[in-house]
Amino acid sequence: MSGQSLLEQLIDALRCLPGVGPKSAQRMALHLLERERDGGLHLAEILERAMQEIGRCQQCRDLTEHEVCAICSNPARDRSLLCVVESPVDVLALEQATAYRGLYFVLLGRLSPLDGVGPAELGLDQLERRLQERPPEELIIATNPTVEGEATAYYVQRMAQNLGIPVSVIAHGVPLGGELEYTDQTTLAHAFGSRRAVAPQAD
Amino acid sequence: MSGQSLLEQLIDALRCLPGVGPKSAQRMALHLLERERDGGLHLAEILERAMQEIGRCQQCRDLTEHEVCAICSNPARDRSLLCVVESPVDVLALEQATAYRGLYFVLLGRLSPLDGVGPAELGLDQLERRLQERPPEELIIATNPTVEGEATAYYVQRMAQNLGIPVSVIAHGVPLGGELEYTDQTTLAHAFGSRRAVAPQAD
Repeated sequence: MSGQSLLEQLIDALRCLPGVGPKSAQRMALHLLERERDGGLHLAEILERAMQEIGRCQQCRDLTEHEVCAICSNPARDRSLLCVVESPVDVLALEQATAYRGLYFVLLGRLSPLDGVGPAELGLDQLERRLQERPPEELIIATNPTVEGEATAYYVQRMAQNLGIPVSVIAHGVPLGGELEYTDQTTLAHAFGSRRAVAPQAD
Repeated sequence: MSGQSLLEQLIDALRCLPGVGPKSAQRMALHLLERERDGGLHLAEILERAMQEIGRCQQCRDLTEHEVCAICSNPARDRSLLCVVESPVDVLALEQATAYRGLYFVLLGRLSPLDGVGPAELGLDQLERRLQERPPEELIIATNPTVEGEATAYYVQRMAQNLGIPVSVIAHGVPLGGELEYTDQTTLAHAFGSRRAVAPQAD
């Protein structure tokens, strides 16, 4: 390319990563060249394969290099539970944090009409067919507690309830280890409004 | 490998980049897969070439994919000036900020005996031969104004002055646009001690 040196091309190319500006890109390029050639080569190889091979799971829309992802094709997973999340990272987070053994449905986004993201873009028609053909015993909604996430959750909830499927939503409130003093007002108001009765302790 | 999905492998591989932890790596992988497949493929290709082809310039030790780097092999550069810097990014910074048209010598580090970095690791023997064989008219020292950078500068300065080569050091002081109030004490003390007489203005 033109008169650019390979080092300059590398610095430019690294800027396609989110949150990486000119200075970070320089630092990354130098670090790889001076101390991490093997890591850099490994990254190049995995990156090329990932960009070419990773598509969406036909069943749950999660990112995968196979036709059907590892979770959907795992016979040990409980097919009577379906959890709706916004993004593949949410699947990773739930898999790491919880003992959930059911299946997922990945929207890959959230309803945002102003950005042109409607039900079709999120595969909600596919979700509806899935709910009709193989209705789960419980549909767990785990979208992010943002305005758009809540709107998406409401849409999914109505769709499932119209089909007579029991729906649950993960709890929103003060995070464990958090302090009321530093919790934002919206969260605190929600947590207060969603308080639940505590049964007397037997001892 | 093992049972890791390609997405998990990509997230792991991205962590060889400096300053990238598990969460940033997830964000980068998802961003590339959802919005920047072309950029990701381009990065993979450049990264592989860079890791395999980039070595050091035989003359100035700068990083380059050629035997002799673009600056050293450019006949328009002034061969009577030599500027010593710590790192290839310093060359980039000086090229962008200044009108300097001489040559460089890149140490790729700084003297740091505790970390096992001595004169040999910085190619200072190579620099000495260069100064003996083709003495420049001026040797400009542009190491970073840190303790180790200053020690390195002092070493290079003595080496050049023993060979009778005029040496200069870039100015250190209050940065332009900075305010005395917010300048650290060491810099301010140095700037005050290095004050220079101002000739009366003719008008």
